[in-house]
Amino acid sequence: MVSRQATVWVNGDLLPVARPHISIRDRGFTLGDGVFETVRVRGERPLNWNRHLARLRSGAAMLDLTLPLEDAGLTSAVFETLRANGLTEAVLRVSVSRGVARQRGLIPDPGAKPVLVIDAQPYSAYPIALYARGMAAITSSIRRNEHSPLSRAKTLSYLDSVLARREAALQEEDEALLLNCAGELACASAANLFLVVAGALVTPDVGSGALPGTVRGLILEDLAPRLGLAFEERPVEPAKLRRATESFLTSSLLGVMPLTQVDGQPVGAGRPGPVTVRLGAAVEAALEETGSLVPSATQPQ
Amino acid sequence: MVSRQATVWVNGDLLPVARPHISIRDRGFTLGDGVFETVRVRGERPLNWNRHLARLRSGAAMLDLTLPLEDAGLTSAVFETLRANGLTEAVLRVSVSRGVARQRGLIPDPGAKPVLVIDAQPYSAYPIALYARGMAAITSSIRRNEHSPLSRAKTLSYLDSVLARREAALQEEDEALLLNCAGELACASAANLFLVVAGALVTPDVGSGALPGTVRGLILEDLAPRLGLAFEERPVEPAKLRRATESFLTSSLLGVMPLTQVDGQPVGAGRPGPVTVRLGAAVEAALEETGSLVPSATQPQ
Repeated sequence: MVSRQATVWVNGDLLPVARPHISIRDRGFTLGDGVFETVRVRGERPLNWNRHLARLRSGAAMLDLTLPLEDAGLTSAVFETLRANGLTEAVLRVSVSRGVARQRGLIPDPGAKPVLVIDAQPYSAYPIALYARGMAAITSSIRRNEHSPLSRAKTLSYLDSVLARREAALQEEDEALLLNCAGELACASAANLFLVVAGALVTPDVGSGALPGTVRGLILEDLAPRLGLAFEERPVEPAKLRRATESFLTSSLLGVMPLTQVDGQPVGAGRPGPVTVRLGAAVEAALEETGSLVPSATQPQ
Repeated sequence: MVSRQATVWVNGDLLPVARPHISIRDRGFTLGDGVFETVRVRGERPLNWNRHLARLRSGAAMLDLTLPLEDAGLTSAVFETLRANGLTEAVLRVSVSRGVARQRGLIPDPGAKPVLVIDAQPYSAYPIALYARGMAAITSSIRRNEHSPLSRAKTLSYLDSVLARREAALQEEDEALLLNCAGELACASAANLFLVVAGALVTPDVGSGALPGTVRGLILEDLAPRLGLAFEERPVEPAKLRRATESFLTSSLLGVMPLTQVDGQPVGAGRPGPVTVRLGAAVEAALEETGSLVPSATQPQ
């Protein structure tokens, strides 16, 4: 592969990533006013792409932010960016900010032009050894605000998650679980949480502050029914972790990651359980299929 | 005054504001990872500057973010920016982001170089008529998360406030009050809230999710004692508004703004009350003094 200068897609242009492209008055920078997706690309196909697109659109709608491209245009832009960077295994960051404010204040300028950024970076997988032992999490002191609609969108205002993850890192643990304001389990700093209780999947519902995750969606809407796994989306008390035989985290980058320890206590047997392992394999296989959902017209030539 | 091209101070350089200066990988843009201050400048003096500096530092410390300048350097940079733009009456936006991430993920790169931005724009006062009638607010459906330390910092992850203010604008009201997750009053979308009850000031405590505002600090630490006004910082039930004889909002740009209506109901007599008016004048006078707190060595020549 030829070494190239990394380039980023910004509103239709492929530009050197080493140079600045965002205004200091862009509301993404000043107010965290925008949404994003983090997408895994395997074999040049963005996985779970239709779910990422749907969530990006629903988050943008919540902010009354018009995406500058239709789905097909967005998909083409992704392929352009991947090819420009010579990447087939990648992590995409697709960000949409409100754009440059022409005047101060919180109310968005209806004439502002949104800024769409597609940044592709090489993918490096989490170590197999981590999947074999599973992650250890703390319970963060930071609560997820289920009373904000933003708990249901993936927004540029992501600092609570940054602080929660840092809290975990300071305790030399892998992840942080966030309770919601009612004291129920919501999610991890950048992943959804599942428990296996009496053979059934249990996961916090969106009303509890869980982000509607893309792998979470794949499991609940597609895999669990297909595999005959019972599941419940509902408020989950932290004590439920002690009654769980297994637990795992899901995200576009983690896939299905066993969660084997919380606050120093093992979950279930303290090692990846059979439902987790089975579902992990099913997710990896299913993601292959979702990768094919990209319109064939935009496949690489 | 000579017309000039607007310039922004970015890490020591004065640059044209019309060009982009922020990387698409700056964590201020991607994660809202940073803090800011909005400062009013009158007669070339940044008002309440020492309180703004203190809060900027305390927010940065919460994020484990090192400001690239000492206070004197920051103050000099502010004056440089004002003079470069020929502004004596201005609104300053001082932003500090974590800087460009060299690798993906939530954990900050300890080697990242923070980005400090000082943007000065012309000040336009709120209309006198608005102070005379007072603001009308709705109670937002969005709750302030008092369970996050970020409720005590002014961060680049500001989207809850954007949505709350938009909610007010859609109802053609001036401001939005945010309850905290416990259902108590916290603050407005970008201002602190005070009630006058039985002649005493009552304001939500920081534990209730109130941002430690700079004008709030001036009132509680300086003016209320000086004027012999009793005050309490504590949890405040929304019902308390019905028992208040007056209410007002405070911020660096509003100063003291009467709040005369909430959710269509008048507060007290529905017009600016005597305590509000007296305190408003006292704050304006006191801000003159705080403006003098800037070290004389950095005063304009």
